[in-house]
Amino acid sequence: MASQRRTTIHDVAALAGVSRSAVSKAMNGQEGLAPGTRKKILAAAATLDWSPSPAASTLRGSRSRSVGLVISRGPDLLAADAFFAVLIAGAESVLAPRRYGLQLHLLSTAQSAESETYRQLTRDRRVDGFILTESRIRDARFELLRELGAPFVLIGEPWQDDRVEHILVSDAMAGMRDLAQHLVQAGHRRILYVGGPEDLVHTLRRREAFARALEDAGGPLPRVVSAAFDAKDARRATREALAVPERPTVIVYGNDTMAIAGAGEAQRLGFRVPEDVAVVGYDNLPMGEWVYPTITTVAQDLHAIGAAAAAALLRELGDTSVEIPPVAPSTLVIRESTTLDRA
Amino acid sequence: MASQRRTTIHDVAALAGVSRSAVSKAMNGQEGLAPGTRKKILAAAATLDWSPSPAASTLRGSRSRSVGLVISRGPDLLAADAFFAVLIAGAESVLAPRRYGLQLHLLSTAQSAESETYRQLTRDRRVDGFILTESRIRDARFELLRELGAPFVLIGEPWQDDRVEHILVSDAMAGMRDLAQHLVQAGHRRILYVGGPEDLVHTLRRREAFARALEDAGGPLPRVVSAAFDAKDARRATREALAVPERPTVIVYGNDTMAIAGAGEAQRLGFRVPEDVAVVGYDNLPMGEWVYPTITTVAQDLHAIGAAAAAALLRELGDTSVEIPPVAPSTLVIRESTTLDRA
Repeated sequence: MASQRRTTIHDVAALAGVSRSAVSKAMNGQEGLAPGTRKKILAAAATLDWSPSPAASTLRGSRSRSVGLVISRGPDLLAADAFFAVLIAGAESVLAPRRYGLQLHLLSTAQSAESETYRQLTRDRRVDGFILTESRIRDARFELLRELGAPFVLIGEPWQDDRVEHILVSDAMAGMRDLAQHLVQAGHRRILYVGGPEDLVHTLRRREAFARALEDAGGPLPRVVSAAFDAKDARRATREALAVPERPTVIVYGNDTMAIAGAGEAQRLGFRVPEDVAVVGYDNLPMGEWVYPTITTVAQDLHAIGAAAAAALLRELGDTSVEIPPVAPSTLVIRESTTLDRA
Repeated sequence: MASQRRTTIHDVAALAGVSRSAVSKAMNGQEGLAPGTRKKILAAAATLDWSPSPAASTLRGSRSRSVGLVISRGPDLLAADAFFAVLIAGAESVLAPRRYGLQLHLLSTAQSAESETYRQLTRDRRVDGFILTESRIRDARFELLRELGAPFVLIGEPWQDDRVEHILVSDAMAGMRDLAQHLVQAGHRRILYVGGPEDLVHTLRRREAFARALEDAGGPLPRVVSAAFDAKDARRATREALAVPERPTVIVYGNDTMAIAGAGEAQRLGFRVPEDVAVVGYDNLPMGEWVYPTITTVAQDLHAIGAAAAAALLRELGDTSVEIPPVAPSTLVIRESTTLDRA
């Protein structure tokens, strides 16, 4: 494995038959390359056992080349909510070409197990740093990781008192403004917001943003209920909302999973979506386009957020050749669940 | 961290206030414990820094305590197909309580990048072994991993010439027989099967099982088309199938993602599901229950398969205290997409 001369980006470019900047793009997971070209470059880099940062190569021996993602919503969460799957896909798009792995730990919600996991992974040097998600009100993880000396980045906004350096987030307000206007223009006067669990910061932020945007758009005050971020609870909330005479003309859910399950339940009860009740989600997960009617949603740039989080962490780890891709503000994606007119 | 006496299962049982067999159950991820009890036990084990196998504890220094899962369908696969998410959730249910992590690598489909990833992970001892999925016809990974001396288990059936010791799979035939009877009894005479990519072993096995089961049930020969395992291709196949006068009365898809997207497209085209065309999926993913109509499907015990794969690998790694949970044969789950009658 010893070689006379260190492999450089020139060698990879030459083997792949492309420019150096193309190699750089491919390794940084940037857009603007044909898929075939990207593949050729990654294959060439793999053949030559080359990765972009000389610093990273030198350090490789003492590094795990692994990034930790500890999710404390129980092992079935990944299957039930594609939110994390998209984030992970985004992170992998930066990590994989640099031969970093993502070390996944799905825990039950016991807090002690969580902090013990962070401690062990750090102590045993099994990961080089962490990507945190879903910040909580007065989140104990930040202090713990500082104590452990473990680099980390946060996806999402921290609570007001928590100070965190690297934060990756799609601003909710932009998409919520467009949504409020969309709903007010369509004449909706009875609006229900079904939000997520109350201890998550983004649940509160999203709800506040929606209420403020509605007010600014001259819309009505929304009625608000809370639900677990799952399909079962969304169905329950939907049944209850549609059982009263003054039922909402539109239901806005805190995520797409709930919106899909809610739209399904409304249809099962004999309501047409959107003619009898319109439905809106949040996140823009792939499955919102599979169902009928397709789901209008506030899109977060989740893939870019995952990629940016991985890139920010790699930079934090000393790999300054990684560029952090930009994260777009949230946008409204209008689909059939607010616009379809079968009449 | 040095202690006079090694911590034992007695200490954990005493701290949690439960029996030793309860501790053993919790650590093996077995059923039959109240969630609160399980949490208490895992917390106690974490507090005492105890894990079940003395051998594993002794070896901990030289082990990564990480299991590799390399998926070569591109980084967006996880988000688009919850199949892997459920498998991962199952594997984590065994790995997490034993403080093993799952090292995830989502690759583009370049074969050279794949084998290089296996080589590097093994060489750098970043994982202790691998879980393989989706065996291919004449799969090169088995030979490679044997060469590298890396323990591995396979989820799914190998192709006929490939010999693999540990195989975790839900037999497709049981569920397909029930499905064939269900469809024949309902009087379906024009049956379309939309299968997955032709180079995957399970695509062929599933299709063969369905054709054989239909024949045994006295049903008609199904028409068969192939599609990528994704929503877009499922929509295209569905549009084409429904555009002809002799359209199918039921479409059976190779997975639930395709079934959901197909049912959505059929409804968009003005067909009622199931009155005009019935729809069936495969896998029993959570979202099949969210949509309307809910999707009839052949259920694989994916969670158990993931758990069994992780357990088999841990045993292979010398941790004989892990029990391999049983994997049930496939079963038919009858839902609205074949039975609903609005008339």
